[in-house]
Amino acid sequence: MTEKKLRFPEKNAWEISLRVRYSETDQMGIVYHANYLPWFEMGRTEFCRQLGISYREWEERGVLLPCVEAHCRYKRPARYDDLLVVRTVIRELKRCSVTFGYNVFREEILLTEGYTKHAFTDPQGKLLSRPEPFYGMLERRMISSESE
Amino acid sequence: MTEKKLRFPEKNAWEISLRVRYSETDQMGIVYHANYLPWFEMGRTEFCRQLGISYREWEERGVLLPCVEAHCRYKRPARYDDLLVVRTVIRELKRCSVTFGYNVFREEILLTEGYTKHAFTDPQGKLLSRPEPFYGMLERRMISSESE
Amino acid sequence: MTEKKLRFPEKNAWEISLRVRYSETDQMGIVYHANYLPWFEMGRTEFCRQLGISYREWEERGVLLPCVEAHCRYKRPARYDDLLVVRTVIRELKRCSVTFGYNVFREEILLTEGYTKHAFTDPQGKLLSRPEPFYGMLERRMISSESE
Amino acid sequence: MTEKKLRFPEKNAWEISLRVRYSETDQMGIVYHANYLPWFEMGRTEFCRQLGISYREWEERGVLLPCVEAHCRYKRPARYDDLLVVRTVIRELKRCSVTFGYNVFREEILLTEGYTKHAFTDPQGKLLSRPEPFYGMLERRMISSESE
Repeated sequence: MTEKKLRFPEKNAWEISLRVRYSETDQMGIVYHANYLPWFEMGRTEFCRQLGISYREWEERGVLLPCVEAHCRYKRPARYDDLLVVRTVIRELKRCSVTFGYNVFREEILLTEGYTKHAFTDPQGKLLSRPEPFYGMLERRMISSESE
Repeated sequence: MTEKKLRFPEKNAWEISLRVRYSETDQMGIVYHANYLPWFEMGRTEFCRQLGISYREWEERGVLLPCVEAHCRYKRPARYDDLLVVRTVIRELKRCSVTFGYNVFREEILLTEGYTKHAFTDPQGKLLSRPEPFYGMLERRMISSESE
Repeated sequence: MTEKKLRFPEKNAWEISLRVRYSETDQMGIVYHANYLPWFEMGRTEFCRQLGISYREWEERGVLLPCVEAHCRYKRPARYDDLLVVRTVIRELKRCSVTFGYNVFREEILLTEGYTKHAFTDPQGKLLSRPEPFYGMLERRMISSESE
Repeated sequence: MTEKKLRFPEKNAWEISLRVRYSETDQMGIVYHANYLPWFEMGRTEFCRQLGISYREWEERGVLLPCVEAHCRYKRPARYDDLLVVRTVIRELKRCSVTFGYNVFREEILLTEGYTKHAFTDPQGKLLSRPEPFYGMLERRMISSESE
């Protein structure tokens, strides 16, 4: 975590909180592992809104972010009714893709970490190169993070 | 059940089988109640295919079936790895809607029964009246069921 | 709605808000109909917490609420990123079951209404009759609602 | 793929087929990325059954396989009503964990590849070392794969 925290200082991360739903548990009595991915999605939805344009509006303006890669490491289980925090950062920005990183905490304990990589495409699935104004928004956030 | 069986004899029903996924259980150790609705959807998808036109093709031809009502009665729990049968029938056909009925069995035991009512709409959500050739297909199935 | 409002005045309802997740949409561009049931579950989870004992604690003390019936009427679609309100009331309290009613709103527009009926059982699935202190909590809420 | 195919020849893989559910799509008109993980789970469930003991029985005998890591690379989208094949192999077997690899195909086209790593634990979450007879079953499959 230390290294990551240096690269993505907290002031450049964005945090949301959520309460675990009963529907998200499985018969092991813990959250089913696939259900963290929608939480990551909630994290990046709020990250985009906070940058200035909601992801709903990205799509309305013709820029989609289909997921091309996802990774998740489960360290400790989350349980029903837990109050969790999802911390989202930009990990990498390329001409045609952006990678978000996520940490899921219960109080100060790290439960899960992961990332998702998303292509920039138009509604027909064609790759877009540096789609503005979205690309610039992400880039400014990256730069402000690195210059600290 | 008796009455229903009279109105919808088995030869007019359509059966599919499925195996319960781990992801469909919750911490009670049984299938979470919302997860029966996608099984109903699987039932009517195969029901439509068997009538002659897949529901995918309905949508490609501009006829959608958004759900306007759903009901489910849970009699006995389904569990992980159970092999289940979903039996689907048409319960009611109106000018602008169709209602499907469902029974979920494990071996000969009825676990769940329910129905879903769907409007006929175009892709913009506007109601369609007796959209052909779909309406005719459903109607012929209803008539063949009643004439027995 | 009018009648319901008389029977369950707003001060006896409990409201939560939630934001629609991308994962909850389907290819019709609206929320998939099964995904309202977990929202109902969130509503009754917070309803129970607000009565004084979280549902997590109900289960820890050996009282479970498996769903035995669910119903949902979809009037208008919910969409990605919508900010919704779920209003939860007790509709009926019996010796061995409780029925919760739900309304889902976007701003002042009613999108969906439904109910879920739950049995009182022990962890082995055996029915429990008026399990205390939970039953009393629910009953006091019902009485305070009716006496207005 | 070539290297992987050498290490895990097809005769040591196990294939299942499935039909994409409407509930598994999102408003992009493709399968939501989290929904591949339950398909992977279906793949390893059938892989275990075919080795001789169903995973349900693993749990009944006190051996659980919580997921500790998951990875997925999405190459081409899957769509509603697609008929898919999930091919499952053991990628790595350690004293306290097993890693399964997965490929998802539509006809001969590779859509997605991924892996999930699972710890061996008891019902309380304590790590188990080489739990028999399960570990031996997995090991024999690995050896038969390598000796070819």
